[in-house]
Amino acid sequence: MTGKVYLVGAGPGDPGLITVKGLELLRKADVVVYDRLIPMSLLGEVRLEAECLDVGKLPHKERTSQAEINAMLVDRAQKGLMVVRLKGGDPFVFGRGGEEGLACHEAGVPFEVVPGVTSAVAVPAYAGVPVTQREITSAFTVFTGHEDPTKPESSIDYEALVAAARLGTLVLMMGVTRLSQITEKLLAAGIDPEIPALCIEWGTTPQQRIVEATLSTLAANVIEQGIQPPL
Amino acid sequence: MTGKVYLVGAGPGDPGLITVKGLELLRKADVVVYDRLIPMSLLGEVRLEAECLDVGKLPHKERTSQAEINAMLVDRAQKGLMVVRLKGGDPFVFGRGGEEGLACHEAGVPFEVVPGVTSAVAVPAYAGVPVTQREITSAFTVFTGHEDPTKPESSIDYEALVAAARLGTLVLMMGVTRLSQITEKLLAAGIDPEIPALCIEWGTTPQQRIVEATLSTLAANVIEQGIQPPL
Repeated sequence: MTGKVYLVGAGPGDPGLITVKGLELLRKADVVVYDRLIPMSLLGEVRLEAECLDVGKLPHKERTSQAEINAMLVDRAQKGLMVVRLKGGDPFVFGRGGEEGLACHEAGVPFEVVPGVTSAVAVPAYAGVPVTQREITSAFTVFTGHEDPTKPESSIDYEALVAAARLGTLVLMMGVTRLSQITEKLLAAGIDPEIPALCIEWGTTPQQRIVEATLSTLAANVIEQGIQPPL
Repeated sequence: MTGKVYLVGAGPGDPGLITVKGLELLRKADVVVYDRLIPMSLLGEVRLEAECLDVGKLPHKERTSQAEINAMLVDRAQKGLMVVRLKGGDPFVFGRGGEEGLACHEAGVPFEVVPGVTSAVAVPAYAGVPVTQREITSAFTVFTGHEDPTKPESSIDYEALVAAARLGTLVLMMGVTRLSQITEKLLAAGIDPEIPALCIEWGTTPQQRIVEATLSTLAANVIEQGIQPPL
């Protein structure tokens, strides 16, 4: 009998922000395949008999390739096991959950997505910033600083991002490494250099740090504060 | 001694999608102030002695005004009670959590935000649609169909939304009432009429219904299927 793969969002860092459904599945799992950016204390919830596989990826240096992860999920489920694929944040917000779901589908393995609290909303919230606020912002746009490294150049349409900033909040995820380039391109595309900007490191965790600036001074302040991308 | 207000996201509809932290607070609360769109079964978790206040708002017909809700939260906390303000989805995604937090702050009442799984991401996920997908969408923009009804006209910048659609997925929340007007304005602003579009009703619940179309035919299909805004 085929098992099943659950693509579970672990939330943004605070272990209390996993969903009730996600935690229940984690406690029952035969196999847990987890990322580098999940709240590690959640692994204490896993059964002693369960197999735990760390596929944490370093930026631009994949420890386990996506194809290997997909194969792992399919293989364990085909052995009849219940697999939880535990991912930081939400599986479908830059989490490659779509690719993993597709791999299961193509192999005839049942899968289910269990959404999580996305860092895009919760990390600003813990820093005191609502992504929408009546009479101020009626929309928000989420984009990523980590595009596919195999792409020859960035496909981000900066003119469109500047337009999106007219609608409301812009949220850049995984943005530290390329922060200078991204803010420069936004400024070159005509964004207001004075808009208030925050950089949040280890959001929702006890290590949370916040750098407050305007968009034009953010990258320099972040470097000055010694904020680095997570290893 | 002053109590505390917790602004808690109940998630998109499936009661299993509340966070562990949110559920723990709900079980301890002295007062629960809840909305129309929370999963009602969660009220079964509340202590028998707790005061439960239904402030569910009908669209454009506020049963309890925002000012009254703010006053309720502040009043109960000032009496030393632990108040959970339970809101559908996430408190800061069109949830007016920012206003409630501000009201607490101005009254000197401690408050804390407990983010929730946002419908903006989870409702498409349960319908099989990842809001981001490698090589297809590298961003998503969330906007609302329910703007402040006191505004003389919509402040939505449709040219900017069309630009945002070039970046990735557009998610319209609370969009059924004004769907025809919104899609017409997007089309007038030059959006591709053939982009695939879904309307999802009661997402993540057993009553979930999905209408699939292109953007230019979505509103007509939604009317044909008899989908109405929730009462």
